[in-house]
Amino acid sequence: MVFECIRRHGPIARVDVANDTGISPATVTAIVAEMIEEGLVEESPDVEAETGKKRGRPRVYLKIRGEAHLVGGLKIAHRSISTVITNFEGEQIAKRETPLARTSHETAELAERCAEAIEETAKDAGLDAADLSAVGVGMAGLIDANRGFVHWSPSLLSRNVAIAPALSERLKSPVFVDNDANLVAMAERLFGRGRDVDDFLVVTIENGVGIGIVLGGQIYRGVRGCGAEFGHTKVQLDGALCRCGQRGCLEAYVADYALVREASVAYPTNDSIDPVHAVETLISDAKKGVQPAQTIVARAARMFGMGLANLVNIFDPELILLAGERMHLDHLYEEEIQSSIRNLTVEVDAPPPKIVIHKSSDEMWAMGAAAFAISGVTELSLRKRRNHAA
Amino acid sequence: MVFECIRRHGPIARVDVANDTGISPATVTAIVAEMIEEGLVEESPDVEAETGKKRGRPRVYLKIRGEAHLVGGLKIAHRSISTVITNFEGEQIAKRETPLARTSHETAELAERCAEAIEETAKDAGLDAADLSAVGVGMAGLIDANRGFVHWSPSLLSRNVAIAPALSERLKSPVFVDNDANLVAMAERLFGRGRDVDDFLVVTIENGVGIGIVLGGQIYRGVRGCGAEFGHTKVQLDGALCRCGQRGCLEAYVADYALVREASVAYPTNDSIDPVHAVETLISDAKKGVQPAQTIVARAARMFGMGLANLVNIFDPELILLAGERMHLDHLYEEEIQSSIRNLTVEVDAPPPKIVIHKSSDEMWAMGAAAFAISGVTELSLRKRRNHAA
Repeated sequence: MVFECIRRHGPIARVDVANDTGISPATVTAIVAEMIEEGLVEESPDVEAETGKKRGRPRVYLKIRGEAHLVGGLKIAHRSISTVITNFEGEQIAKRETPLARTSHETAELAERCAEAIEETAKDAGLDAADLSAVGVGMAGLIDANRGFVHWSPSLLSRNVAIAPALSERLKSPVFVDNDANLVAMAERLFGRGRDVDDFLVVTIENGVGIGIVLGGQIYRGVRGCGAEFGHTKVQLDGALCRCGQRGCLEAYVADYALVREASVAYPTNDSIDPVHAVETLISDAKKGVQPAQTIVARAARMFGMGLANLVNIFDPELILLAGERMHLDHLYEEEIQSSIRNLTVEVDAPPPKIVIHKSSDEMWAMGAAAFAISGVTELSLRKRRNHAA
Repeated sequence: MVFECIRRHGPIARVDVANDTGISPATVTAIVAEMIEEGLVEESPDVEAETGKKRGRPRVYLKIRGEAHLVGGLKIAHRSISTVITNFEGEQIAKRETPLARTSHETAELAERCAEAIEETAKDAGLDAADLSAVGVGMAGLIDANRGFVHWSPSLLSRNVAIAPALSERLKSPVFVDNDANLVAMAERLFGRGRDVDDFLVVTIENGVGIGIVLGGQIYRGVRGCGAEFGHTKVQLDGALCRCGQRGCLEAYVADYALVREASVAYPTNDSIDPVHAVETLISDAKKGVQPAQTIVARAARMFGMGLANLVNIFDPELILLAGERMHLDHLYEEEIQSSIRNLTVEVDAPPPKIVIHKSSDEMWAMGAAAFAISGVTELSLRKRRNHAA
């Protein structure tokens, strides 16, 4: 918590870390001392006092030590891998986009693709993959981040894969894996719209529908590490068939594949339809009022609005961020969604949560993965230090 | 947090309070000193050491000081008010059930009914209402507990009522008001099944469907104080009409009034049907396989299962407790619900959350209200003390 606070607000004085986290000043001082000795955090001069802008004794500020470690961040998308390398302050040093020939992979094959992507990105920056202290990975699916374990992911052909150890062995460095929507939420919390908001949700819509839940400033993951599952919540009993095999999932109405399924009926002649193109055509036709494109998109928007309204009813959050690829296509969609939410949330005479569309690139997601790796490195080095002491 | 920990685990040593809460031992000692001076907490002898069951230096334990204050707890139900009086340890001193002539009230009238209920209960115990240091009140609806403000409640004819000040003026003591399902969750956390579980949900089904969300040991209330709304989450776009005026709410399928609505079609001759009786008849007929009773109850159960499955998908909690009146009617219902949940939650090779039916009386809900009053009194006296010091 101390590290996250310095990362979000640094340069920051020790007393403000104590105030912000609710941890006692003595404990903050002790933890900071450990982190300074480990080289993770450094003291930073009081610029205002030094330049004479402020009177009185200069205060000592804390900040993350950028050169402490280099880390990699990786987002495994539908048909590509986005990679970044950042310093310990999260400043980007290199980035790269690598295409993937297919969507689902054998574990060893995916590890190979990830390793190649990281190696190429390192090379771009005149580095070696071995220079990275850790790699963070975001992927879609049901992922237990504590164990780096994939219950299920659309990117993997097998279920129940201990993915972090597999990647770690190939990459020769610690690997931290989380659900990709959680990592967008982490990126928003550290660098984006969630910086000053303690309770917010990030909902992503692209090939699937994801959610990251931030409560009290922390990512909420559930007990088995498979919580925060939104795309497979049910919006219709015995409804449309979903990729997961169940019926009536939100995804089965709003995800790309669901729109493509409808498009294949709407545009039957176009039989070898390219998914990305089909969805774009559908939405652009819908905007022009062409039927049945319009009715297809309108239903998807209303179903999505219903799902979001349920989140508002349950969480009553300060903010919901809508992120992801599909958010690039938008307007008609957006209005339908917003009006569904208004009509389907419980009525109170208090302003509803802000719902903000924050189009985020795969690069942003990879930055979230790098941020996760930074947290991981910090925990590892403090734990190692304490084990030494004990 | 320190108080809640002592209340849940006392008698407990200071060091264990620090371990359990994550608050530094020095801070725990300082807070405990304040609470002892205020007479809220007391030291308790080490019984095991004194009786020779344990060797070594006797430890000092902390417990709530039962005689510190008396409080009232009140649950406003559909057609009755349940009242308890407890000491500061939450031990029951008196209880009473007072019938209500109607369901919805003017604010002043409801305040009058509550005051009478409290006065009568006090009299039963040879006390006066003025002996109570505070009263906790639980009622259905959208309630901002921080402000004691009712956005909407089925028990009140008006919206936007500052109910706590209104009751406080009539009762001449501080009043703390919360959503009734939150208070059941609090009771379960303090005295019941949630004692050793940090993340759990309590779902109540009676006239409406309620939820109490406990995350990290704390009740989650949302930003505007109208979160944790489950009964009006939508399970069907443009579905059955709900009392709230919207369509497709979970309540519109599973609450008493929804079953009565269906029963009025199933049993058309019985035109002045008594709600409680109608639901009982319906469920008993359904168990015998009588149609259409069976199909009515089966759909309600499946819809309820779908709603619960969505909660499992989102929260991945350790435990869900099903509480409330409707849980008395049960079995057929229960199996349908459990199987719906199994079929509609995302599949992982890890055991699903425990779903436990914990039939709880209105008295249990009133005990939760009393517990809420105890927390309120504690906060008030520590705040008063600090204001004095400042």
